[in-house]
Amino acid sequence: MKGFGVHTSMWTMSWDAEGAARAIAAAAETGMDFLEIALLDPASTDVDLGRRLLDDAALPSVCSLGLPEAVWASHNPDGAITFLTLAIEKAAGLGAEALTGVTYGGIGERSGHPPTKTELDNVARALEAAAKLAKTYGLSFGIEPVNRYETHLINTAAQGVAMIERIGAENMFLHLDTYHMNIEEKGAGNGIITGRDHLRYIHLSESDRGTPGVGTCDWDEIFASLAAIKFKGGLAMESFINMPPEIAHGLSVWRPVADSAEQVIGQGLPFLRGKAQQYGLI
Amino acid sequence: MKGFGVHTSMWTMSWDAEGAARAIAAAAETGMDFLEIALLDPASTDVDLGRRLLDDAALPSVCSLGLPEAVWASHNPDGAITFLTLAIEKAAGLGAEALTGVTYGGIGERSGHPPTKTELDNVARALEAAAKLAKTYGLSFGIEPVNRYETHLINTAAQGVAMIERIGAENMFLHLDTYHMNIEEKGAGNGIITGRDHLRYIHLSESDRGTPGVGTCDWDEIFASLAAIKFKGGLAMESFINMPPEIAHGLSVWRPVADSAEQVIGQGLPFLRGKAQQYGLI
Amino acid sequence: MKGFGVHTSMWTMSWDAEGAARAIAAAAETGMDFLEIALLDPASTDVDLGRRLLDDAALPSVCSLGLPEAVWASHNPDGAITFLTLAIEKAAGLGAEALTGVTYGGIGERSGHPPTKTELDNVARALEAAAKLAKTYGLSFGIEPVNRYETHLINTAAQGVAMIERIGAENMFLHLDTYHMNIEEKGAGNGIITGRDHLRYIHLSESDRGTPGVGTCDWDEIFASLAAIKFKGGLAMESFINMPPEIAHGLSVWRPVADSAEQVIGQGLPFLRGKAQQYGLI
Amino acid sequence: MKGFGVHTSMWTMSWDAEGAARAIAAAAETGMDFLEIALLDPASTDVDLGRRLLDDAALPSVCSLGLPEAVWASHNPDGAITFLTLAIEKAAGLGAEALTGVTYGGIGERSGHPPTKTELDNVARALEAAAKLAKTYGLSFGIEPVNRYETHLINTAAQGVAMIERIGAENMFLHLDTYHMNIEEKGAGNGIITGRDHLRYIHLSESDRGTPGVGTCDWDEIFASLAAIKFKGGLAMESFINMPPEIAHGLSVWRPVADSAEQVIGQGLPFLRGKAQQYGLI
Repeated sequence: MKGFGVHTSMWTMSWDAEGAARAIAAAAETGMDFLEIALLDPASTDVDLGRRLLDDAALPSVCSLGLPEAVWASHNPDGAITFLTLAIEKAAGLGAEALTGVTYGGIGERSGHPPTKTELDNVARALEAAAKLAKTYGLSFGIEPVNRYETHLINTAAQGVAMIERIGAENMFLHLDTYHMNIEEKGAGNGIITGRDHLRYIHLSESDRGTPGVGTCDWDEIFASLAAIKFKGGLAMESFINMPPEIAHGLSVWRPVADSAEQVIGQGLPFLRGKAQQYGLI
Repeated sequence: MKGFGVHTSMWTMSWDAEGAARAIAAAAETGMDFLEIALLDPASTDVDLGRRLLDDAALPSVCSLGLPEAVWASHNPDGAITFLTLAIEKAAGLGAEALTGVTYGGIGERSGHPPTKTELDNVARALEAAAKLAKTYGLSFGIEPVNRYETHLINTAAQGVAMIERIGAENMFLHLDTYHMNIEEKGAGNGIITGRDHLRYIHLSESDRGTPGVGTCDWDEIFASLAAIKFKGGLAMESFINMPPEIAHGLSVWRPVADSAEQVIGQGLPFLRGKAQQYGLI
Repeated sequence: MKGFGVHTSMWTMSWDAEGAARAIAAAAETGMDFLEIALLDPASTDVDLGRRLLDDAALPSVCSLGLPEAVWASHNPDGAITFLTLAIEKAAGLGAEALTGVTYGGIGERSGHPPTKTELDNVARALEAAAKLAKTYGLSFGIEPVNRYETHLINTAAQGVAMIERIGAENMFLHLDTYHMNIEEKGAGNGIITGRDHLRYIHLSESDRGTPGVGTCDWDEIFASLAAIKFKGGLAMESFINMPPEIAHGLSVWRPVADSAEQVIGQGLPFLRGKAQQYGLI
Repeated sequence: MKGFGVHTSMWTMSWDAEGAARAIAAAAETGMDFLEIALLDPASTDVDLGRRLLDDAALPSVCSLGLPEAVWASHNPDGAITFLTLAIEKAAGLGAEALTGVTYGGIGERSGHPPTKTELDNVARALEAAAKLAKTYGLSFGIEPVNRYETHLINTAAQGVAMIERIGAENMFLHLDTYHMNIEEKGAGNGIITGRDHLRYIHLSESDRGTPGVGTCDWDEIFASLAAIKFKGGLAMESFINMPPEIAHGLSVWRPVADSAEQVIGQGLPFLRGKAQQYGLI
């Protein structure tokens, strides 16, 4: 994971022959260094097709997901391990470099209480098993802290670091997201600094999930902090403009967060890439 | 509503004899211009006692609330009207200048879909009735947009303005909150500018609900925009450091958002008051 | 003066047939609403040619200047009046809407002391006469506060407002510059708010005079404040990348402030225009 | 040099018995970790007295200066060496840890042209000799880039680093200043990152030289960048509120830059110290 990439949701929500071809062509056209592929339904993912298309385009990839409620690691660690096992096999089959995201639970998981010892023990057990398996495939394995409304388990860089250091797997990494940090960290710079030893991937997402550069994120502080910690990982633009309603609503997006996907690609992408260049990150 | 105030939660969660006395004494000691009183349970609120204490301290007040799920206006407008009627009577009994907050629904109200016409019609009907009643008591009546995770109905200043202009009641006003704007607006300044004609109250709350000045809110942009629109309303500091767990968890606060209430009062309050003075707002 | 324009220095330093034609063509191509023409040497300016080119392009214009040392208004108000008289005639001849800039003195005028009463009296006398004359031509007449190193006379919006209100000419206006405000104001928003009643023109110039968007100016605060005061005047991008050495050095620019003029036009211009659109200013 | 200190100008401009005693008492009272002493006139500095007072207070110190015009290193390197030799002896006599500042020239040195090879050669020769001498006293020796109006020689962190690496003296260090970076760097974070290998001292000075926290400096970006590079050097607050007119005017300060020294100490100092604590720097 390195350079500047983008989440496939900018171009497709279906990783089928047509969607994968479109996303890969668009990623090539916009000069992406890698593609982040949503592994929303590992079981139905045709890895051979995807791998061939990615290989033909010489495009590295990263897979990401959240767990379905039935297999949230906090209360069903064995179910989580089973689900992650398939996801890791599929990610490896696609030739991805990593599996990451909310690998410990699901979007919207909130018990109404702070995380309990049992919940965190279960999460740690599932992640440890998954990281170990991922390693056998040569895959890195990430966890992404998300905001207080999307999970009660891991909201901050510090909590992510604590989980990673508890498990101690060398192929585990921290995956931060500027949208979530904007809500949870005492300055996005602080989150980046706290996570520095384990940070290998970051979602660049605006404060409202819309067009980067047109919200409340302090991009200079974010990029200066990344440059100052000598960040070498992947920078992945993310926006929720182009999601199908059922997914957008699951993420609590009730209105279009930008004028159009064209605005995100035509304006937000050059903005982020320009800042990454200004700070010597790409 | 004018000057600089604070939510009673900084000092008490119970508006009983002891709690009210403590909050009023603390507000006086810290030089507050008004107090925001949480009317969480209007039925049990002893207004005579509160009014006497407020009058003795010559301290203006504002009441705020969210609706219980059974009477969310989107699906039970009549229930909402009944609840708001009692709340308005109590607010008037306390001598408050306004009733405001999520007066149209509850924290955590999410249908999983964008607001429907029926939901918004119901909300408008309930708010219209409540505003009309509030007027007979000489009370202003506010609505506070909150972020996408706390409601699917009214997230932005533009949506708040649309509802207010639809109803057309002269005593209705927009109540913004910097915490929510940090997630929903394309810059907090934009929210303030969009709401300018109806904005009479603003919650000054940091991006993580912690100590103001120690998060991602751009306070200079916020205060410059308020000064530039010649804002004359109430500035109310809010933090969730001091809430009892059951309320904090209802608001998805899973960890202490500041070191202590003393830090919020000792550091955050002078920070915000200093900025308000720098921009000529107080 | 309204909409989005640019200083001719982006394209030429000589307002001769070739330079004027190039600048006007480039302004048209980049969709400018007006052109700011440097009247560095009024005596040699061929107004008929310029006017014809501007008229053919239907391009409004604004003229700007600083005074030569011999006629700095603080110590030679009569000389300043004579110089400004010619400049006003030439600006009118070009069909410009205004004459503005450091119309009260010169870049680098520093006595080593705060402005004296005599100096300010002299400045007021010269400006009053110039404003009166400008009015007979239907021209607006502006003054631009510049930073402490470029003059000791008028550094802040407050000082500019004081001078304008002292003179009381209805066609006088305040011309702010984000580069200078970045050094002198307690927040650029504060400068804009202080100047609001007289502000009709603003230079959008980055903190190092380089590519807008790549420095320390807080553009969101700047544009939010402009939108909040309902600014209707001209927004003029300025950069010192393209100046001939003798002028750049007079302005204390000792190194290229951007990679190239192409970067300023290709990156800085869309950035500023995008922000102006985001805030509803154009 | 480590921890949080302040320039003596906050409390005295005369390093005589009375001034030194006052500054040292005030530094102790405000909990400073060190004091920056202006060595404006090394020849007249009574080092024995100062050292005794500093030793009694167990207060570390740093000396700073600019060169008088007659001995600017760019055209009189031998004169500069003579002047710096005395200054180094005096700094050592005071028990200071370093001599720093505009050790290569003077405030206001501008030739009207970019630095020439001869000028930079002369500067390098003087600095090399001074650094070598300083080393024999166990002193560190710093150079401070200042803005384009104060010198044409070294304006940016990159230029400072180039000079330091050219000379190659292990006791030389880069001394940045947030006020100057606000004008010269493409983001203060960028200056800090560029200078990271040599940065051991930083002036924390607001954009107008007034009260820290009340200007245009992006303190979160500054402190996040310092934390991210694991800065271990000295943080020295600087303001020009309290300077005698002759010095203030030499620095082009024509008006009071804050309401009072009390405001700088009472408001700006806690602000900066709070931010330094938030980012784990002290």
